Amino acid sequence: MTDLVRPRTVRPILQAQVEQELQAVFDRSRPLVDGFGPELSELWALMARQLHGGKLVRPMLVVDVCDAMGDVASPASRTEVIRIAAAVEILHFAFLLHDDVIDGDRVRRGRPNLIGELARRERDGGRPGAAAHWAQSAGILAGDLLLSSAHQLFARVDVRESVRRRLLDLLECTVFETTAGEFTDVSLADGMVDAEVQTVLRMTAQKTAAYSFVLPLRAATILAGGSRELENRLAAAGAHMGLAYQLRDDLLSTFGDAADHGKDAYSDLREGKETAIIAFARRSASWPRMRAHFGDPHLSAPRGERLREQLRSCGAESSVLRLIDAESAALEQLLRGDDVIPVPVRDVLTDLATRLDGRTS
Amino acid sequence: MTDLVRPRTVRPILQAQVEQELQAVFDRSRPLVDGFGPELSELWALMARQLHGGKLVRPMLVVDVCDAMGDVASPASRTEVIRIAAAVEILHFAFLLHDDVIDGDRVRRGRPNLIGELARRERDGGRPGAAAHWAQSAGILAGDLLLSSAHQLFARVDVRESVRRRLLDLLECTVFETTAGEFTDVSLADGMVDAEVQTVLRMTAQKTAAYSFVLPLRAATILAGGSRELENRLAAAGAHMGLAYQLRDDLLSTFGDAADHGKDAYSDLREGKETAIIAFARRSASWPRMRAHFGDPHLSAPRGERLREQLRSCGAESSVLRLIDAESAALEQLLRGDDVIPVPVRDVLTDLATRLDGRTS
Repeated sequence: MTDLVRPRTVRPILQAQVEQELQAVFDRSRPLVDGFGPELSELWALMARQLHGGKLVRPMLVVDVCDAMGDVASPASRTEVIRIAAAVEILHFAFLLHDDVIDGDRVRRGRPNLIGELARRERDGGRPGAAAHWAQSAGILAGDLLLSSAHQLFARVDVRESVRRRLLDLLECTVFETTAGEFTDVSLADGMVDAEVQTVLRMTAQKTAAYSFVLPLRAATILAGGSRELENRLAAAGAHMGLAYQLRDDLLSTFGDAADHGKDAYSDLREGKETAIIAFARRSASWPRMRAHFGDPHLSAPRGERLREQLRSCGAESSVLRLIDAESAALEQLLRGDDVIPVPVRDVLTDLATRLDGRTS
Repeated sequence: MTDLVRPRTVRPILQAQVEQELQAVFDRSRPLVDGFGPELSELWALMARQLHGGKLVRPMLVVDVCDAMGDVASPASRTEVIRIAAAVEILHFAFLLHDDVIDGDRVRRGRPNLIGELARRERDGGRPGAAAHWAQSAGILAGDLLLSSAHQLFARVDVRESVRRRLLDLLECTVFETTAGEFTDVSLADGMVDAEVQTVLRMTAQKTAAYSFVLPLRAATILAGGSRELENRLAAAGAHMGLAYQLRDDLLSTFGDAADHGKDAYSDLREGKETAIIAFARRSASWPRMRAHFGDPHLSAPRGERLREQLRSCGAESSVLRLIDAESAALEQLLRGDDVIPVPVRDVLTDLATRLDGRTS
């Protein structure tokens, strides 16, 4: 998933607090890690560098929504809110890493990811492919450490036992749902399940919305002492936003300006990524003409452009646009007609939805 | 790691309790999992089947040592002891899975592992290699779910907060140490670090002893209300036992009777596994003659037999045997000269060490 938004207002103090907590997670474990030899020490240091400098969209959603609930009696101190916000970012990074291992990706946001960094370290006289295997393995293990760290942060949060259990339940649910999305995604990519529209849409919601939107919103509700009803309402809002977000991301990757979104213009088409766009295209009478070029790693730019046009003319693009509109409308209705969600929280969500709507990258 | 021991006395009730708890872990999450679609449901069911029927050596070590501490005031009920014992088994399975992904292994104890099960499900008309990639990805994701489950069990254990935090510290330490061992192992296998004896021995201790011996012994101490001193003493005992165990395992795999240990007789040599035996052999003057055949995937049986003889005659086998003796002696001395470790616990450990000493598979 690419960046959600650019911060509209500058919230340097809160962001700095989240950054400090992330740094502290790495610093706290450093003595332990350093005791286990140079290999893990180096990996841990690289992980800290890779995690540094993110836009912190997910943790800031936790903090912002928690703050917007100001008048509810919060069972969590600011320290604990920041801790859970950091855990959400660490979980995000863990999922990204294992996603990159599975997809064989070595670049993220135009820079080498952890695997890409390590894969370059070929040793003189090494077997061909050894560094690549080693880097992929490091990606698995680094993801494990981050998954573990996220759980440790949730497990140690200093709140009432009932609140801690709600947070652990939420974490459990998020891990299962995101893993379900990831597994369906790879099942689609490897042709092990059929690319039906419903399957692709379910995968899209599970893989992105669950941990990027629903998790921060539910965590904020729990930390602020909100009711189950409010938690469910915000979960629904997060699901609408997350699905709309990811569908828009698919449209941008497929039809958007490469100069804007920073990816190779035809990479999704070359990789044969099973997006909702493709699922709709598969239903159309002109799919047989597109099929031969979809997933061709050597797809030329003119062929890619032609494929784009076909995806437009067969109605796949507009079908996805209609879905996005439907999700946006559902969100709007949910926010407008709701007296469970406090007004300042509705404002945060409306504002975020507006920014997501207007993005071009 | 192959099976540690066969149960000496039959403890069907305790084992059944651990098995029930393992089953319960899968059953409790089934409604959640089933809500996320058929792909994850099937994977979860396969994971439960794969986990079923293990010898439960590690969880039974938790239970046995906890029981042997009978006269210490235990802060944990039997239910919680069983829960942590189950978590130890689940963590073991998570590590095995990611180890199998990294090594590309599809068989464990003569049966297809989870990856092997899934890799057979080629689909008609599927891309070549698609099922293999899908199975490897499933191995990563299943390992993630199990790693998460182990953390959830530790996080929710119903004991005093100080005891819970000690258990979480122990889990954290174990995850880091095992990951360090795994990372050094793959770094050795891929030739990214030099196969020095000290590096291989450190890896051997970290990868096996930490979670198979030290974790169960320390967890039992904490659950039984034992002191930090006792915990450290048992950690030292576990480290000696674990290193001796793994070195003996390496000897059995390399020199043992294939009919006994059930593996291919020369698989470690064909795979080029960087064991302590090989690390010693690398120091000998005759290594250049062995080098060409070590790691040869097509190593013939006569060549393999010749390599075995060279590993014996260069002194590598006897060097490892001496190390095992030293670890066993250190353990014996620790147990004999100690008045911190209760006598029944010493008996459990002496008994286990004796059985590990005499195994041939």
